[in-house]
Amino acid sequence: MPHIKLEEGVPGILGPMLFSPHTAGPMNLLANALMQSDEGLSRGERELIGTYVSSLNDCYFCQTIHGAIASAYLEDDDWSFVKNVKSNYAETTLSEKMKSLLSIAGSVQRGGKNVTTEQIETARKNGADDRDIHDTVLIAAAFCMFNRYVDGLATTAPTDPDIYRNRAKKVIANGYSATISNGTY
Amino acid sequence: MPHIKLEEGVPGILGPMLFSPHTAGPMNLLANALMQSDEGLSRGERELIGTYVSSLNDCYFCQTIHGAIASAYLEDDDWSFVKNVKSNYAETTLSEKMKSLLSIAGSVQRGGKNVTTEQIETARKNGADDRDIHDTVLIAAAFCMFNRYVDGLATTAPTDPDIYRNRAKKVIANGYSATISNGTY
Repeated sequence: MPHIKLEEGVPGILGPMLFSPHTAGPMNLLANALMQSDEGLSRGERELIGTYVSSLNDCYFCQTIHGAIASAYLEDDDWSFVKNVKSNYAETTLSEKMKSLLSIAGSVQRGGKNVTTEQIETARKNGADDRDIHDTVLIAAAFCMFNRYVDGLATTAPTDPDIYRNRAKKVIANGYSATISNGTY
Repeated sequence: MPHIKLEEGVPGILGPMLFSPHTAGPMNLLANALMQSDEGLSRGERELIGTYVSSLNDCYFCQTIHGAIASAYLEDDDWSFVKNVKSNYAETTLSEKMKSLLSIAGSVQRGGKNVTTEQIETARKNGADDRDIHDTVLIAAAFCMFNRYVDGLATTAPTDPDIYRNRAKKVIANGYSATISNGTY
């Protein structure tokens, strides 16, 4: 049961966002600016970083919805690729650049000061530029917020994968900013 | 030295925000909506929660600037009260309500799932309502983002307290949203 009174049947982060629309607005704008950008990292890569950090934070709702969005972008129909990235990205077919960025994201998840100069150098050697590194750090940091918002209020989450598949389609079509304001959760 | 190329002499979070204005915009709107609200918790109490979480995350820039803002609101001229809140809030003259909310904020800092039903019940017994609990969780979660953004990119921070005092006055007068766009950092 959630720690505060939230509308029933509204899953995950959408419950608190409906409770507090004046803070949900900027949070969705941030998600949109950060995740629905085509500059540098692809949308699928951005969602992979968010999914990985959400799995490190053990946030079921976030890792499942963002995993579903990543899978949709990456044509990973049975979710097996995203599952492998979460459990052991080093052994996947991801680019060396993405592997080094996920390593940085993992450090950010434990705390910003864990990011080392060596990790940054490795990422650059693998083709990452300032924008890629910036966006990786901010995506990882932002998911440390979203995950804590979802679990710190003990929100509920559906288990039916089709609910996440359907919501993923809506996010991909309309962006994050639109998903609360028009009630299409 | 920061992990990416940031404008010199721009301290803390303001460097990455200048680097990436399209994500800074929503982040400042969120800070404004969350910290410059008079509904329920006072602005000084909101800043205390942000300062406390920043100290748990060992983020020098954030705990110093938000500590300076909290001190300005709470007429804590020599910063001794905020310092005591950071080191041992239970022994301060803070209200029992604020102490129980800081306890919740501390749990969120370690991860959302650490918030217990007992902590929520204690907060309610001490006068906290759904809005107070929601805002405490979201402030704590948001500072877990801001702190990681600042330290994950290894930004630099000035040590002169007057720089923080002066910036605190500007934030109190103009809000967070205005401090980047008009260049008054």
